[in-house]
Amino acid sequence: MNLILISADELNPNHSIQLTDRRFKHIRKVHRAEVGDALKVGVINGELGTGEILHIDEQRVTLHVTLNSPPPPPLPVTLILALPRPQMLKRTLQNIAAMGVKELHLLQTRRVEKSYWQTPLLIEETVHEQLLLGLEQGRDTVLPRLYFHKRFRPFVEDELAQLTEDQHKLVAHPGDFPHCPANVNEPTTLAIGPEGGFVDFEIEKLQAVGFKPIQMGARILRVETAVPALLYRLFGHLA
Amino acid sequence: MNLILISADELNPNHSIQLTDRRFKHIRKVHRAEVGDALKVGVINGELGTGEILHIDEQRVTLHVTLNSPPPPPLPVTLILALPRPQMLKRTLQNIAAMGVKELHLLQTRRVEKSYWQTPLLIEETVHEQLLLGLEQGRDTVLPRLYFHKRFRPFVEDELAQLTEDQHKLVAHPGDFPHCPANVNEPTTLAIGPEGGFVDFEIEKLQAVGFKPIQMGARILRVETAVPALLYRLFGHLA
Repeated sequence: MNLILISADELNPNHSIQLTDRRFKHIRKVHRAEVGDALKVGVINGELGTGEILHIDEQRVTLHVTLNSPPPPPLPVTLILALPRPQMLKRTLQNIAAMGVKELHLLQTRRVEKSYWQTPLLIEETVHEQLLLGLEQGRDTVLPRLYFHKRFRPFVEDELAQLTEDQHKLVAHPGDFPHCPANVNEPTTLAIGPEGGFVDFEIEKLQAVGFKPIQMGARILRVETAVPALLYRLFGHLA
Repeated sequence: MNLILISADELNPNHSIQLTDRRFKHIRKVHRAEVGDALKVGVINGELGTGEILHIDEQRVTLHVTLNSPPPPPLPVTLILALPRPQMLKRTLQNIAAMGVKELHLLQTRRVEKSYWQTPLLIEETVHEQLLLGLEQGRDTVLPRLYFHKRFRPFVEDELAQLTEDQHKLVAHPGDFPHCPANVNEPTTLAIGPEGGFVDFEIEKLQAVGFKPIQMGARILRVETAVPALLYRLFGHLA
């Protein structure tokens, strides 16, 4: 927790806030903070600033919050991801929030097991929790928006062209394609397939709406590793 | 498991091998393989090839192994990593093996909790297991070599200069430094600090032996995320 994230409605009119939950426990046990210490604080979907500890005991901490700077800029990317296995989904949600992705589309593809859509991880509250963990890690305040598409074809044929108009469009796919570029400045949509990859039909459909395949080489990376690797290669110069 | 990894001494003189362990279970339950199917096989520290299924039942599988190609080229990198927390260490060992790192130095630094050296994850057998999982993921056969340095100063002052002679030397560190470069071709040593970073004294010692600080931006990534991100940014064009 590199940032204490709070909701605007938790803040009292005098700019103080009292915490008793996992944030309090973290401040007490990990930061080992004392009265007078200043911690990094952010308001969800709002500004960053500091929280000065006015009072701390074994039950609660009271902070005086001063907000004074904007959150870090988002990455200029829309991510389209075949729905990963639940355990990978968890870390992927944290990673994309930490790295500054603000729009994630989770997609059914041929090689996605349909049962993955039943995972409790996709419940709104749990998704929210993972995204908050990511924002706390990356010191950002702005929650990514998630969209679910349980049918590949209508999404790609009817929605994707419009969604990605004027964008640089890349799809990571094994094969004799160019390597992933580095240092891209244009708004980009990046599509990443499931374990086992997209099937030919799916790649053709993506190419038909303007996606250019890029390869990651002979090595196969897990989705939770491939996503941050691709994002940082494309946009590390903007970080 | 994108590759069935075997030891040279498991292979019979007639190039067959019988498996009954987790590799057999994976072939049966995940691949759902049948007689005649060909699976990707590799010999630890040796060649890649295929294993044709001669026989499979509920207890065992017998493969006929043909070796015919070298493993993918290693990354031209030596990695120096402040010893991460045990859970992060596990995934980091898998990731570096999957991505083609062949030399990893784990290092004590001021902000590494000394208790981390007591983790059962550092037992040789467990490290080996994690590295195999990574090689199976990345379809490589060559085990990375690991070195442990429980004292920062003697390692950096007495060993590091010689170890990294003529190499490009980078240390990831927050601050007003250049961004991480992309597409590096020279042999490189990359140093990555613990959560909380190196302390000033440590950065000065690393700079004294030629390390150039690079920053990853305002966002703070977990080590298990930062490592593959940095590696793929630096060397994705060689993958």
